[in-house]
Amino acid sequence: VVFEVLILGSSSATPIYQRHPSAQLLNIHERFFLVDCGEGTQMQLNRYKIKYPRIHHIFISHLHGDHYFGLMGLLSSMHLQGRTDEMHLYCPKELQEIIDIQLKYSDTRLRFNLIYHFTDHETSKTIFEDDDLTVETIILNHRIPCTGFLFREKPKKRKLLREKLEQYHVPREQYSALKSGQDYVNDRGVVIPNEKLTDDPKAPCSYAYCSDTMYDERIIPQIKNVDLLYHESTFLEDKADRAKETFHTTARQAGLMARKAEVKRLIIGHFSSRYKDIYPLLEEAKQVFPDTSLAQEGDKFIIE
Amino acid sequence: VVFEVLILGSSSATPIYQRHPSAQLLNIHERFFLVDCGEGTQMQLNRYKIKYPRIHHIFISHLHGDHYFGLMGLLSSMHLQGRTDEMHLYCPKELQEIIDIQLKYSDTRLRFNLIYHFTDHETSKTIFEDDDLTVETIILNHRIPCTGFLFREKPKKRKLLREKLEQYHVPREQYSALKSGQDYVNDRGVVIPNEKLTDDPKAPCSYAYCSDTMYDERIIPQIKNVDLLYHESTFLEDKADRAKETFHTTARQAGLMARKAEVKRLIIGHFSSRYKDIYPLLEEAKQVFPDTSLAQEGDKFIIE
Repeated sequence: VVFEVLILGSSSATPIYQRHPSAQLLNIHERFFLVDCGEGTQMQLNRYKIKYPRIHHIFISHLHGDHYFGLMGLLSSMHLQGRTDEMHLYCPKELQEIIDIQLKYSDTRLRFNLIYHFTDHETSKTIFEDDDLTVETIILNHRIPCTGFLFREKPKKRKLLREKLEQYHVPREQYSALKSGQDYVNDRGVVIPNEKLTDDPKAPCSYAYCSDTMYDERIIPQIKNVDLLYHESTFLEDKADRAKETFHTTARQAGLMARKAEVKRLIIGHFSSRYKDIYPLLEEAKQVFPDTSLAQEGDKFIIE
Repeated sequence: VVFEVLILGSSSATPIYQRHPSAQLLNIHERFFLVDCGEGTQMQLNRYKIKYPRIHHIFISHLHGDHYFGLMGLLSSMHLQGRTDEMHLYCPKELQEIIDIQLKYSDTRLRFNLIYHFTDHETSKTIFEDDDLTVETIILNHRIPCTGFLFREKPKKRKLLREKLEQYHVPREQYSALKSGQDYVNDRGVVIPNEKLTDDPKAPCSYAYCSDTMYDERIIPQIKNVDLLYHESTFLEDKADRAKETFHTTARQAGLMARKAEVKRLIIGHFSSRYKDIYPLLEEAKQVFPDTSLAQEGDKFIIE
């Protein structure tokens, strides 16, 4: 069971000090989700030896360039590498226009289908769902329409205790009902309680990606108790005015958000180019929420 | 006197093996001209410590992404760094539409003016001219409209020989005429031939950038005798069919072009991702034109 977040870039608007703009790759049970795609993302994928064909879903939070300028290059490279698998794009609807015009003027007809799933920046919605995972948008508060993304495993099935099943002679056709939590009634009408035959499943994992946004407590109910929260932290608290003015968050505020939402761990990122040394941002967030890490390129965060 | 070409990237469509897509920076007497701007160009400029404010002219050959996907990011960064100097863009007219739509959806109003100079892909024109330099478009033969660029210093003024001027008592007001090659007639009506008073100037430098294109001899008269020719060389000769089909050139053909145009030196670039090792391309071109070099990132070619 794998649920991990690989940081490909965590710079804010201007790439500097070898820091790339926003991009993260999620591996959830060997399905790969790319979240934001700043300039140079394809080079970063190469650097970390990620095979492009494994990616089938790309999520774009908003249309500031540091979150999507790498997308056309990545799609073009996929095309040139002969991709035929469809690609799902979760993004503001205007992105389609931006992509279409560039395909048109380069006279490119992609060999694969782009399936668009437009985000609604006013109402949180489930934009992806399969057997064991959902992705919801998180309504962020930025200068232009912007959504975060909440990746959440569905509650898992209960684990069968093989020895007990044999002991109680449970027929195979009952296993599925047991996994869903039902009790077993044997052929003599005796009820064997589910907890005698099964064990608690692993708790579902959850990850919230919140960039870019000003500090806004309205998202707390939605991200409550997540295992891992990525929250932007563009500035230090002494630039709180600047943060507000530009619809960004300070490191202290990111810590506060993590604490109030009672998340398990916090990653901060989207660092302003004014900070060559980003450790002061970490120190500031840690004062409010100790279990904080910096989003640095190549770092992998595993949720267990 | 400086006339140099810095290679920022020379990969073809897909960036791979740490090779970035096309971009070059020309320094001509401390004026900086950016030629093409593939994804990651701003990171490459950072890497080679080029200050963005020094660049006032950007030339885009055509609208395949590997030649311009880095432009929006570079312009955005210039904007965020507070640039107010106008930027001149020499490009196909459709690029304006691509830029405008992205500025619109990111709600960005650049702090500096973008001055467009649209290229005509059917007729070569002088698109830049000042006191000592002209830039002409070169009509290339590619799948979509594409122009190369010919940078050429204007003929320089003749050099005054100070000792001779004193010896012949030439008055100062005659200096300008002498520099232009006129003879001096003294107050007694004696003609002193120009070559007694002046020396030949340095030959003007010239650089031709030809990417992307199939082998097409029609450009030879225009690039004849240039000091330095950059010609794309996407494939080896054993892929000549593939080169033709995709409107690209082989290394051998690039060498042939250099030989037929009698240029002084050749740089080859725009290497296909199929070549991890690019030295066979160099060897192939050298068999036809010995003074050939590979365009490798960070390499600087000086014209003297």
